[in-house]
Amino acid sequence: MPDPLDFQSIMMALQDFWAAQGCLIWQPYYTQVGAGTMNPATFLRVLGPEPWNVAYVEPSIRPDDGRYGENPNRMQMHYQFQVILKPDPGNPQELYLKSLQALGIDPRQHDLRFVEDNWEAPALGAWGLGWEVWLDGQEITQFTYFQQAGGFVLDPVSVEITYGLDRIAIALQRVHGFQEIRWNTPGSDSTGLSGLTAGEVNLQAEQEHSRYYFEVGDIERLKNMYQLFEAEANNALEHGLVLPAYDYLLKCSHTFNVLDTRGAIGVTERQAFFARMRELSRRVAGAYLEQRQRLEYPWLDENRGAGEQANSGANEKTQSLSGQLTDPADLLFEIGTEELPAGDLDGALAQLEQRLPALLSELRLEHGPLRVMGTPRRLVVSVDDLAPRQPDLEQLVKGPPASRAFDSLGQPTPAAEGFARSKGVALADLQLQEVDGGRYAVALMRTAGRPAGEVLAEAIPGLIASLRFDKSMRWNSSNAAFSRPIRWLLALLGDRVIPFEYAGLVSGNTSRGLRFSRWEEFSVNNPQEYSSCLAEQGFLLDVSHRRQRIAEQVGRLAVEVGGAVPEDQGLLAEVANLVEVPAGLLGSFDPQHLDLPGEVLSSVMKKHQRYFPVERDGKLLPYFIAISNHGDGNLIDERELVREGNEHVIRARFADAAFFIEEDLKKPLQAYLPDLGTLVFQGQLGSMLDKTHRIYHLVEDLSGMLGLTLEQSRVAVRAAELAKADLVTKMVVEMTSLQGVMGRVYALHFGEPEEVGTAIFEHYLPRFTGDVPPRTLPGLAVGLADRLDTLSGLFAAGLAPSGARDPFGQRRAALGLVSNLIAWDLNFDVRQALGMAADRLPIAASEESRRACLAFVGERLRHLLLERGYRYDVVEAVLAEQADNPAAAQRAVQELAAWVQRSDWNRILPAYARCVRITRDFQERFAVDPAVFEEPSEKELYAALQTAGAAGRQAGLVDDFLNAFLPLIPAINRFFDQVLVMVEVEAVRKNRLGLLQRVAALADGVADLSKLEGF
Amino acid sequence: MPDPLDFQSIMMALQDFWAAQGCLIWQPYYTQVGAGTMNPATFLRVLGPEPWNVAYVEPSIRPDDGRYGENPNRMQMHYQFQVILKPDPGNPQELYLKSLQALGIDPRQHDLRFVEDNWEAPALGAWGLGWEVWLDGQEITQFTYFQQAGGFVLDPVSVEITYGLDRIAIALQRVHGFQEIRWNTPGSDSTGLSGLTAGEVNLQAEQEHSRYYFEVGDIERLKNMYQLFEAEANNALEHGLVLPAYDYLLKCSHTFNVLDTRGAIGVTERQAFFARMRELSRRVAGAYLEQRQRLEYPWLDENRGAGEQANSGANEKTQSLSGQLTDPADLLFEIGTEELPAGDLDGALAQLEQRLPALLSELRLEHGPLRVMGTPRRLVVSVDDLAPRQPDLEQLVKGPPASRAFDSLGQPTPAAEGFARSKGVALADLQLQEVDGGRYAVALMRTAGRPAGEVLAEAIPGLIASLRFDKSMRWNSSNAAFSRPIRWLLALLGDRVIPFEYAGLVSGNTSRGLRFSRWEEFSVNNPQEYSSCLAEQGFLLDVSHRRQRIAEQVGRLAVEVGGAVPEDQGLLAEVANLVEVPAGLLGSFDPQHLDLPGEVLSSVMKKHQRYFPVERDGKLLPYFIAISNHGDGNLIDERELVREGNEHVIRARFADAAFFIEEDLKKPLQAYLPDLGTLVFQGQLGSMLDKTHRIYHLVEDLSGMLGLTLEQSRVAVRAAELAKADLVTKMVVEMTSLQGVMGRVYALHFGEPEEVGTAIFEHYLPRFTGDVPPRTLPGLAVGLADRLDTLSGLFAAGLAPSGARDPFGQRRAALGLVSNLIAWDLNFDVRQALGMAADRLPIAASEESRRACLAFVGERLRHLLLERGYRYDVVEAVLAEQADNPAAAQRAVQELAAWVQRSDWNRILPAYARCVRITRDFQERFAVDPAVFEEPSEKELYAALQTAGAAGRQAGLVDDFLNAFLPLIPAINRFFDQVLVMVEVEAVRKNRLGLLQRVAALADGVADLSKLEGF
Repeated sequence: MPDPLDFQSIMMALQDFWAAQGCLIWQPYYTQVGAGTMNPATFLRVLGPEPWNVAYVEPSIRPDDGRYGENPNRMQMHYQFQVILKPDPGNPQELYLKSLQALGIDPRQHDLRFVEDNWEAPALGAWGLGWEVWLDGQEITQFTYFQQAGGFVLDPVSVEITYGLDRIAIALQRVHGFQEIRWNTPGSDSTGLSGLTAGEVNLQAEQEHSRYYFEVGDIERLKNMYQLFEAEANNALEHGLVLPAYDYLLKCSHTFNVLDTRGAIGVTERQAFFARMRELSRRVAGAYLEQRQRLEYPWLDENRGAGEQANSGANEKTQSLSGQLTDPADLLFEIGTEELPAGDLDGALAQLEQRLPALLSELRLEHGPLRVMGTPRRLVVSVDDLAPRQPDLEQLVKGPPASRAFDSLGQPTPAAEGFARSKGVALADLQLQEVDGGRYAVALMRTAGRPAGEVLAEAIPGLIASLRFDKSMRWNSSNAAFSRPIRWLLALLGDRVIPFEYAGLVSGNTSRGLRFSRWEEFSVNNPQEYSSCLAEQGFLLDVSHRRQRIAEQVGRLAVEVGGAVPEDQGLLAEVANLVEVPAGLLGSFDPQHLDLPGEVLSSVMKKHQRYFPVERDGKLLPYFIAISNHGDGNLIDERELVREGNEHVIRARFADAAFFIEEDLKKPLQAYLPDLGTLVFQGQLGSMLDKTHRIYHLVEDLSGMLGLTLEQSRVAVRAAELAKADLVTKMVVEMTSLQGVMGRVYALHFGEPEEVGTAIFEHYLPRFTGDVPPRTLPGLAVGLADRLDTLSGLFAAGLAPSGARDPFGQRRAALGLVSNLIAWDLNFDVRQALGMAADRLPIAASEESRRACLAFVGERLRHLLLERGYRYDVVEAVLAEQADNPAAAQRAVQELAAWVQRSDWNRILPAYARCVRITRDFQERFAVDPAVFEEPSEKELYAALQTAGAAGRQAGLVDDFLNAFLPLIPAINRFFDQVLVMVEVEAVRKNRLGLLQRVAALADGVADLSKLEGF
Repeated sequence: MPDPLDFQSIMMALQDFWAAQGCLIWQPYYTQVGAGTMNPATFLRVLGPEPWNVAYVEPSIRPDDGRYGENPNRMQMHYQFQVILKPDPGNPQELYLKSLQALGIDPRQHDLRFVEDNWEAPALGAWGLGWEVWLDGQEITQFTYFQQAGGFVLDPVSVEITYGLDRIAIALQRVHGFQEIRWNTPGSDSTGLSGLTAGEVNLQAEQEHSRYYFEVGDIERLKNMYQLFEAEANNALEHGLVLPAYDYLLKCSHTFNVLDTRGAIGVTERQAFFARMRELSRRVAGAYLEQRQRLEYPWLDENRGAGEQANSGANEKTQSLSGQLTDPADLLFEIGTEELPAGDLDGALAQLEQRLPALLSELRLEHGPLRVMGTPRRLVVSVDDLAPRQPDLEQLVKGPPASRAFDSLGQPTPAAEGFARSKGVALADLQLQEVDGGRYAVALMRTAGRPAGEVLAEAIPGLIASLRFDKSMRWNSSNAAFSRPIRWLLALLGDRVIPFEYAGLVSGNTSRGLRFSRWEEFSVNNPQEYSSCLAEQGFLLDVSHRRQRIAEQVGRLAVEVGGAVPEDQGLLAEVANLVEVPAGLLGSFDPQHLDLPGEVLSSVMKKHQRYFPVERDGKLLPYFIAISNHGDGNLIDERELVREGNEHVIRARFADAAFFIEEDLKKPLQAYLPDLGTLVFQGQLGSMLDKTHRIYHLVEDLSGMLGLTLEQSRVAVRAAELAKADLVTKMVVEMTSLQGVMGRVYALHFGEPEEVGTAIFEHYLPRFTGDVPPRTLPGLAVGLADRLDTLSGLFAAGLAPSGARDPFGQRRAALGLVSNLIAWDLNFDVRQALGMAADRLPIAASEESRRACLAFVGERLRHLLLERGYRYDVVEAVLAEQADNPAAAQRAVQELAAWVQRSDWNRILPAYARCVRITRDFQERFAVDPAVFEEPSEKELYAALQTAGAAGRQAGLVDDFLNAFLPLIPAINRFFDQVLVMVEVEAVRKNRLGLLQRVAALADGVADLSKLEGF
């Protein structure tokens, strides 16, 4: 094996490769940029209709990635290699993979993956969809289909390929970090110094610039620079100078980054900066577009060769094998895509499962079993025994009334003629029929059944087009939208191709297997052959099969090191959608890293790397399990390079976490509080610091309501003070999911009591559906206060969620509030608590907003109870009386649910109902005077009521109410048998109504039984 | 012939070439730099003892080179390829030339030259010596041996090679300007847009940035930016951060350049900016050096390979052929160098011519004819018939006096013993001899003659080391200093090598011929063979032969187009020193360029390109003649590529001049006056605007003295006002030699009268020795006023020139003053005029300074007269009386010179002398009373004197004086024969003395004849 390329040879090899692909070789930009994207050779050239192919190195400066040279692969300057292909050449992934081979990366020795990553540059008004490309778990490239830049929709779309050269070199040279990268190679006969490493060349720069960015840069001066740059950008724009303006925008951006790293930018300020830069970039982009238009798009000249090669010829050999089938045949339909995001794969499969049967039925095609399957690179539909053609169809179509269709002589009128003509039937074929009780002229329309292939060829494009995704993209001139580009379409009915075109592709019988295998592209003659080909490659087309396989492998590998992997269905589901042929791999890391908080390690492994952490007795072991995509899919992945690569990555990731934590620990948690002042909660409601103050006081208010001891109250108040401080720490800014976790860690580090730390952590509980509730009262109290403030505040500010929009997460807040109270089974007056919260707001909360807020919480409670499976009417009945007290409502619902199941319920409810029905229209509460009773049954009922009333009842309890009510039933029944309530004499009548009102009132505060079925 | 490389392939080929030479491939810097030199990979890495070899592209931003995309090869951004070789590998020129071949430049088809260019970056405290490399007249590379950076002397010296990629591409692709450069090539199967030109990619940027730099940039904001950058540089330095500080220094530098281009920097301000940047760069460099020292110079690790390869082995095969010669032999000694500057070549030859005979005589080596010759690449000494060895030598050395050397017994004393020992002779060999009138012990020392080879081997290194140059450089670890690196040493005495070492080289019998010929390196067996080898290659070793050859060729070529080339000895001498084998070449340019002022065209051709302009009837023709270095030296250069290249260059040069003029013409000349306020003349004497005011008034003062008419006076005053305005125009800033020329052009363009334009131009006349004087009185007047102000002002400020130092050019000013007065033959009282000038100064001019100034002007007059060949004593005699009036002095000298040649002069002078000698010691002027005369001869003399006095005499004229004096001679002679002057009687004595005093006084204001020989 030849020596791996040195660093400079990697750069030169990429230049050579892309130059040979017709790319213009460009140079790094002459002002600091965070990425090659910001070089005008990308940002401006992707705008407008002209083609553009370019490749260049870009040493990219990201101040906040500075690590003083101490992280293996995170540096304030990293080397990118940037490629822009505009328009999409149709095979950019393949070109990219070839370029890796040109670097000496043997894809068979490695795990190469395209992992969803949607790119957005808010300062540039730019976004795109694509992937991180992973080499053995390491992100080595960002691959993006640019959709928008400077706020302009891009047409054509550009493919952007951004190589991380340092990481590629680390992987290729199998070294442990950027410092060890061999930059050049001592030649046999070369003179002078050589054989240098990147560390020798750049370590000093990393150290110095990190210090400058984190510690030394003068904030005031940097802010002044920003202002000057911005003013000059505007000055240049006013004179119509696009490039000078853009240069200054870039300088703004870099200066902003330095300020940010320096810790000088509050969150509100950040948004303002971004808005200003976005506006500038929009104006620059607009000016550039105008300029090119004025120049009449010189590069559109068709003699310039090239232009979009579309995908013509991609399926050149595929000819329609269509023809008439006479027997049922299997249908196979495969949409071949570039790697779909895990969520989009699930979404597409669900939509196909729903729509396909309906479609086939609409198409009148009989069929046998139907399966919808998929992997990241394909959506597959398989239908057994599809009818070879539609049955013929006869339809009667109603025309004009008989009286208007035929004249008195029975001759067809012009109306009848028009109707027949419009339906395409002969006048003679019109008949008269009774329809809906009238007599009409009707046309009998016969539609001959068409061959299934023909019908499907027409229908399938619509089916593909109907699939919806959270984010869709365009990629070629067809402007078709999909989750990711569609690259091939296989459609077979039996051994015939179903011929159609979509997104610039022609359907055929060609599929693609694992890359770099002999199956890279293959043809099949029929659905069965397709299945067996994929099976032979180890594909598990069915998502659930993949999950199962992965779970098995993960389990086996964990056992090998004496551990186990805690269940995580979310991770499992995601990972199963990232591979076509899963192969688990056990990696290890330095046990020293176990010094980091376990939640941090787990979060890093799961969120960043999609690894399964391995535990023993609830404690992490220094291992992880990664799932790679592997041709020998049934085996555990034994490729040494793959493991080594993954282990390198996690080492760097952990080092980075350690860096953040180390930085964060430079001051106590308390000291972060002032920074909260720069973090806006919401415009009218102030900063997170303001919110913290409110929570703090609210916790004091709630202590009594929640029955906290003095000690618990002290803990809760301190926790409230610190609860939000970690939001401005570096670790949490990097991984928001660690909020609360880091708060606890940092609090304890600086000597806060264990209970305070716990409450800080717990106040976020539950974090997601199925998460645990807080297990301490202080934690509960702080969380309640936080949510009460959020809800009452946002409603007071007029920001109630509407429709599906819930940008502030109020649904989650309300649900957490309700579910915690239920979990703790704590009586709690939500109305009162919201009122207290509202009274502490910096703005006035109108009565209406208070009502709306309370109703909103009640609504969450309703959903929660319904989700728990309670009958709708039971929930309604209880909530009518107890919506303000979720725990009580839950209790009541539970009890009532049992009552309505009782066999004697049909005796109980009617008795109560009689009392209610006769009284409910009276607003007035009538007095009851025993002296006015005339009938014995009146007196009996009154006495029974007295007894029931005397029984000890706990407020809101259904059991207490109904148990008290049960004895009244005979008296009620007798009363109604024997007594006429609505007598003439007013005093008697009101006395009787008053008595029944009192019976009905027994349910006050418990439930409104009138909401129940059968009432 | 394959297609020439496209632009990106040129860059990639250079990367490949230098990577193969062991260079680290680096990237362009991420902040705007004016040159690759400013990339820290050069500026910092050349500091300190560590080796470093690097190569990279650098898109270099030079705002003031912006030409709105309209110049063929001057742009605000040009692409450099930068190479640093540290230490000197010993053959950097050869490596460089190989790299050109790697680009497909066939040196045999082109004219490749190394033309002196000394590089200096005042803002970086850096300088070096080297060349522009010319490809067919086009500068394509800057090749420099770095001597200093950041104010630190560099050891080792770095070789810097800076390719101008755009120009190389233009030449290689044979296109007409940067816009046409093919950047990439449409591939046969490449997809997408390709085949772009540099114009398509970069023209818009050229236009926009030019506009920004020249018109749009906001001066106030840019100045603020500069301040902020500088403050941050200091901030970073205070924290010991070298690279961040350096980044900000670069930003300062770029911002300064923008300000400068924007016209916002006065000349004084410029110096202040430079001083600040230089100070910053010094501190940055110092900090970097300390840092590397603290790191213990890791790259000095000897295992890193390489290090200086010195020149060991360069002459490996050369073995000393030394041995004993018995017969006289020819000596040949060649110092092979990299291209010497034209002036240094002349200087070295002169020094050798002077020292060599002395050296040989000192070495006691008899020899025949001796010749000193040279070309840019060699200094050659040839001596015929050198004696094979020194003769033996006997020397008597004086010791102690006899009385102290021998005691009374005749025994030698310790003093004698000591003397004998110190001289290495036996005690017995001491003798006693008379020396200088005393008796001494003497030693007879015999020195045996040594072989010539041995003696020369010892002496030659000293001879080389003794050569001095205006600027010397070091290049390798020998730290030898020379004009340019010495690369080989050939030294033959007959057929024997004279063995010695110098500057890391060993002498041998190898020489080098024209590059890329079969003579690239060749050995010779003896001096005769050397001569014939060089002759065979067409070399003209003798400078005068080359001049003659060139003059012939230039004449022939001019005739071909019906023109002639005006004589320009300076240019001829320079060009002859730029080539070894001259070959003239006739090129043409677009006659449209003849619209530009002829002086501009000529200046550009001569100064920038060393071309001979071709004229007919005093008007330029659209042709030029270039002298290339060519193997077929006897022929006119017929290589088509060479002509084409040269024609391209001159086109670009003219376009550039046109640009400057167009820019300058955007406002009238008058409008440049305020800018003169920013141009310092001298600290105490104010700006050039202040000077202009003084000249203006002085011209008014002088009008009367010079006898100007009213109209002439008006012209002169207006011309004085405008005379200096062109100093701040772009064309003059670019080419100072055009001062006055452009003033006239611009004045006339904006409607000034022809006479004013002429006076503006003429006030600089004469510009050099041999130049014409002004031909109009206003021109003369303005020039006089300017020079009077300069001289009186600088003397008043205490800035008299001293020794060879004359930074303000006062010698030239005084000479111009004097020579113009003489040329116009105008009586003019310099004393009075200097006084008037002194009175207008902003500072007080002391009496002493006034005297010194006047004396300084007199001194120039003396030199001028002496240079014109007048006898020293004649000049002295006249200047003693008429130094203040140069024209009169010249007249007087001319006349007196004729008188002293007269045959009767030995009668005239003694007669006059007798009168003077007897009276000159008396200070008192005695009265003459005719009544006191006693003798007839007294009376006769008195009468003759009366007659002479009555004759009309023009002041100062020698002829008038002596013609008046002639008739007195017989009377004088008789008087002295017959009269005793010094009689006792005082009255008589004084009366006689008085008479003689009157005779002597006839010469007053004419000449002091006592200064004459024979007086």
